[in-house]
Amino acid sequence: MKKHIYADNAATTQLDRDAFEAMLPWLLDEYGNASQPYAFARKPKKALAKARAIIAECIGAFPEEIFFTSGGTESDNWAIKMPAYSDPNKRATITSAFEHHAVLHSCAAIERLGFPVAYMRPTKDGYITPEILEDYITDNTRLVSVMFANNELGSIQPIKELGNVAHRHGAFFHTDAVQAVGHINLDVHNLGIDMLSASAHKFNGPKGIGFLYVRKGIELPPYADGGAQEGGHRAGTENIACIIGMATALKKNCDTLEENQMYIRALEERLLRQLGDAGIKYTRNGGSNTLPGLISLSFADVDGEAILHRMDLMGISISTGSACDSKNTEISHVLKAIGLNENLAKGTIRLSLGKANTEEEVTDIVRAMSRIFS
Amino acid sequence: MKKHIYADNAATTQLDRDAFEAMLPWLLDEYGNASQPYAFARKPKKALAKARAIIAECIGAFPEEIFFTSGGTESDNWAIKMPAYSDPNKRATITSAFEHHAVLHSCAAIERLGFPVAYMRPTKDGYITPEILEDYITDNTRLVSVMFANNELGSIQPIKELGNVAHRHGAFFHTDAVQAVGHINLDVHNLGIDMLSASAHKFNGPKGIGFLYVRKGIELPPYADGGAQEGGHRAGTENIACIIGMATALKKNCDTLEENQMYIRALEERLLRQLGDAGIKYTRNGGSNTLPGLISLSFADVDGEAILHRMDLMGISISTGSACDSKNTEISHVLKAIGLNENLAKGTIRLSLGKANTEEEVTDIVRAMSRIFS
Repeated sequence: MKKHIYADNAATTQLDRDAFEAMLPWLLDEYGNASQPYAFARKPKKALAKARAIIAECIGAFPEEIFFTSGGTESDNWAIKMPAYSDPNKRATITSAFEHHAVLHSCAAIERLGFPVAYMRPTKDGYITPEILEDYITDNTRLVSVMFANNELGSIQPIKELGNVAHRHGAFFHTDAVQAVGHINLDVHNLGIDMLSASAHKFNGPKGIGFLYVRKGIELPPYADGGAQEGGHRAGTENIACIIGMATALKKNCDTLEENQMYIRALEERLLRQLGDAGIKYTRNGGSNTLPGLISLSFADVDGEAILHRMDLMGISISTGSACDSKNTEISHVLKAIGLNENLAKGTIRLSLGKANTEEEVTDIVRAMSRIFS
Repeated sequence: MKKHIYADNAATTQLDRDAFEAMLPWLLDEYGNASQPYAFARKPKKALAKARAIIAECIGAFPEEIFFTSGGTESDNWAIKMPAYSDPNKRATITSAFEHHAVLHSCAAIERLGFPVAYMRPTKDGYITPEILEDYITDNTRLVSVMFANNELGSIQPIKELGNVAHRHGAFFHTDAVQAVGHINLDVHNLGIDMLSASAHKFNGPKGIGFLYVRKGIELPPYADGGAQEGGHRAGTENIACIIGMATALKKNCDTLEENQMYIRALEERLLRQLGDAGIKYTRNGGSNTLPGLISLSFADVDGEAILHRMDLMGISISTGSACDSKNTEISHVLKAIGLNENLAKGTIRLSLGKANTEEEVTDIVRAMSRIFS
């Protein structure tokens, strides 16, 4: 059987083995409902508190600022919609045109209910600068939401500076950090972030779990109404096993952040160097400050979909755009937002390398691309 | 070590061993994102379709009518809120005063946004009769939401008749069937249900996963906006492992529904008979049509909380009310809704037996109660 090379770590990652092992007791014998008052609920309740503290520490937050959700999508929906729904004055939301659809479609949903939203256009490299935000923001802005790092380009946004602009105008600042958490250093208090969305399966945790960080003092009504879980802020029986898996995976990634980054960055450089050596002409998108391992490449006069499928036949999984858009054969909204010309946009692929990838795999990827481009 | 007896199966259940085994490949090697277009996504995509078909068959639905969610709470929020938010005429929602908080608090949320809600009072036995609904419904009713079986009393509602009343007045009918699915026979098409909420961990599936059935032809806007998963109706990377676990658990429960019911009903009768034999005076709440194994008992002049804690010290997990309310020492909204007098309401406990309980455990439970009441 052909060896499989997975180079789509921005779509999802393999569950870390330690995270898996940590989940097992909660899937098997310790099944008690953490919200019950008896002894059998004590262990899950304690584990929940510990997981919350671990996650908080990884991002520089207080434990009581972490709210478990079913993933990045729910976190984004919560952070975008609830500030709007609880604002009788219908002040404006500002976001960027190249956000993930979880943010963009949440914005469309509040627009349908009469809450105004403005969409900032990023630079051609894929950045929202403080100057761009200054052009849009007014004292009637309620919320600014800009992603930490773009999922197709990898470009890391100037979060602290954007937050400062938002705060100067009395607006809150939310960031969809689904691609960043567990991959780059990130301190929410130091960066002045008011709300932050994260998803476990992007950092080697399980699918179906994530969290929303909400800065202390912010009144955010629940998105999931019901029971008194999460301090009354997010209803639903606690998904202990996945929460423990998420905390274990995040801590492991954060404990080895520097070495992971160096390792993945070296793989990335190797790939680009070898592509050059092979005489393959490409443009790299996303400018100079990108996530380690996230590589958006454009080729003239070829079809990105065709590259994806030929790579797939050679056992290599890559992407053309974001995971949620790969069914869609139109040019991605991200590439449109940065104004990439149609020829290059159609010939764009995304490689996303992770800590599990090897130098040999990188060489195999370049070898496969050489066959496609020869 | 003292043996633990778990008699709180209405709060959560132990994950079925086969369901656990079925989840393993999706937690370990088959981690591909089901929404991607390459070969590595094919297996999860197929498994997803198979799970959807299995679940649909268990409740008499079509596969395309099943939408995976993070659990019963999300399903209820979706079914209650989205019909309201997409109704410019703000027609009324009718529900009952003894619904789960996932329904009641969702109703409160739409009320805050100006959508009217009426709360029907059940009979003292714990039933919403068609006559009660007739008193509330008008041709300006948009949605009727009545739970399939009450989580504190076990009383199974006359769903088909209630649905008929709703439909005669042009309203849709939703049921929170979290306590019923996997425990009693249920055919959504035959019963005329328009929307139904379910939660896997109540039928020996994993926590953090559930589904909403939405009858074909009903236009229900997404609750989680974002990617194109679930046919564009529920965004978020598919939680394959838990979905497979849910389908496996539900099929197993449904395949053995009759024998489980008979077995659990026999345990229930044994418990009540032994309580009588021990001379313990109780009132059973919930009338004559209750879920197998769900037993609400009231005792005069005692404190239900005290019974719970003394049982707990003897290694037996029971409940006083719904799982989400057990922190709350006030009388539950369910017991208030059926008008139980305060003395009995304060002395109420809920035992919920499941297929894993044994005759010996029932005898031990009665023995423990005898010690408390002696």
